[in-house]
Amino acid sequence: MAKPILVVGSAALDSVEGPAGKVEDALGGSSFFFSTAASLMAPVNLVAVIGTDFPMEKIEYLKDRNVDLEGLEVAEGETFRWAGRYLDDPNQRETLYTKLGVFEEFSPKIPEHFRSTPLVFLGNIHPALQLQVLDQIEKPELVVLDTMNFWIHGTPDELKKAIELVDVLIVNDEEAFDLTGKSDLRNAANDLMSRGPRAIVVKKGQHGAVLYQPDEDIFFAPAFPVQHVVDPTGAGDTFAAGFLGYLANHPLQDPMSWRRAIVNGSVVASYVVEDFSMNRTKALTNSEIESRFNRFREMTQF
Amino acid sequence: MAKPILVVGSAALDSVEGPAGKVEDALGGSSFFFSTAASLMAPVNLVAVIGTDFPMEKIEYLKDRNVDLEGLEVAEGETFRWAGRYLDDPNQRETLYTKLGVFEEFSPKIPEHFRSTPLVFLGNIHPALQLQVLDQIEKPELVVLDTMNFWIHGTPDELKKAIELVDVLIVNDEEAFDLTGKSDLRNAANDLMSRGPRAIVVKKGQHGAVLYQPDEDIFFAPAFPVQHVVDPTGAGDTFAAGFLGYLANHPLQDPMSWRRAIVNGSVVASYVVEDFSMNRTKALTNSEIESRFNRFREMTQF
Repeated sequence: MAKPILVVGSAALDSVEGPAGKVEDALGGSSFFFSTAASLMAPVNLVAVIGTDFPMEKIEYLKDRNVDLEGLEVAEGETFRWAGRYLDDPNQRETLYTKLGVFEEFSPKIPEHFRSTPLVFLGNIHPALQLQVLDQIEKPELVVLDTMNFWIHGTPDELKKAIELVDVLIVNDEEAFDLTGKSDLRNAANDLMSRGPRAIVVKKGQHGAVLYQPDEDIFFAPAFPVQHVVDPTGAGDTFAAGFLGYLANHPLQDPMSWRRAIVNGSVVASYVVEDFSMNRTKALTNSEIESRFNRFREMTQF
Repeated sequence: MAKPILVVGSAALDSVEGPAGKVEDALGGSSFFFSTAASLMAPVNLVAVIGTDFPMEKIEYLKDRNVDLEGLEVAEGETFRWAGRYLDDPNQRETLYTKLGVFEEFSPKIPEHFRSTPLVFLGNIHPALQLQVLDQIEKPELVVLDTMNFWIHGTPDELKKAIELVDVLIVNDEEAFDLTGKSDLRNAANDLMSRGPRAIVVKKGQHGAVLYQPDEDIFFAPAFPVQHVVDPTGAGDTFAAGFLGYLANHPLQDPMSWRRAIVNGSVVASYVVEDFSMNRTKALTNSEIESRFNRFREMTQF
């Protein structure tokens, strides 16, 4: 039986344009990207805020796939909206606008029956809110924290406190350097682990991901190659969903579970970028995930 | 019995400075970097040119390790000299000077008993010279060509002709894009393979290497992590040495040989950058190579 996962993150309506086309007011935000993918593998308890303008039919499918929406607060006002444009190089994007709406006053309230969820994903939100979540929950088996440069520079003290309290930190290489002042990834990871976390996952985009654990060898996983990246939005949250979704089904004390969780994260993330918003992960099946997982193994064996 | 390898490339005296120190008139050039590492694994036939000023004692050790120097021409004049400075980020370097000397008039003459060497490495030199070498040799089992952006833009026609005649092309991702006008690595590799080569090796520096073959799945290998890069000069030639050195000892018709050759290339290259010039590969042993090869396996298994 898969362990349930609590996700706390943003809920948004994204307008995205790029070489492959565009979408307006499409489903976005870390809590929806995460739960859409993770719910294929485990029950998900979602905590986020939307405005009264939110088109509820867009998330009807989440109820059919084991996502408990009791923690989805509907607040008076407008839903968080983000608009961005991707250039030919999908690693480059411009933000066209950010309208925080009800997200500006978000104060996550964890429903009573969510508080002992064994696995927790703290999506990329203000670290003070991440700390509020940690205050409300009972000692989970595993807490994974995602963050970004905006918080590293804007709210370093609260972020440092949050990092000390979690088990896994997911960052990219630049963020690892910024957080530690180190210029070598292994040194940066060691520094971060000395503050509390038992594992550091460094995402390197098209170059894959690296897993650092104090008493284990480093693990390198390339990114699954995607021929046509349509929309990279949500790739990080979907990676986290594949990672935690795998750990929800496999023993945490087995180091191989962690390595395979990284591979599973890369695999699931390789699907989400193939279409706009959550269009691809909404239609994703477990046998598709398994098939790319196996191809991944074929592409790395020697 | 390992098959012999013919290498044709530059022979230089390098002056290198960087955060870790500096060296002056140290052994450099693709033919020396290649043969120092490859001779640990196979007999090497070397073709290059040095000037009458060259300090022959610097390459005395090559004779003791199965490098046939009959193709090392001594020409009236000065040896090719290059000087460069590495910045804190070892991926960035400035060239301080390039003095071609006798290398400017280099016209590779392949000694009679080198002409049927089964494996050939065409180091990064003018593609017209690479073509001259191909004209002089008898159909080898495998020819590997290295090149750089300078030739891609400066002598595109000659380079195209050379690419059509070789079996393996080693490039970095930028070079693959420049050579083909494609922006996706797989498309670029397919384009290059359609011109003749049976394999494309794309080096991605600190992000590893990818092997493309027409009828095989892609193979991804991360770079072996090096804690302290002292001098990245020669990393590409040393990678090629590890690659060809492996293939000299394993059946070319087995796809696994090719994958392991890539890993071996990454492993041997991880050593050369740990010290200036060839200081580290001169002292390298086969058991050290094997030990990192095994650690490489441990770091990528899942």
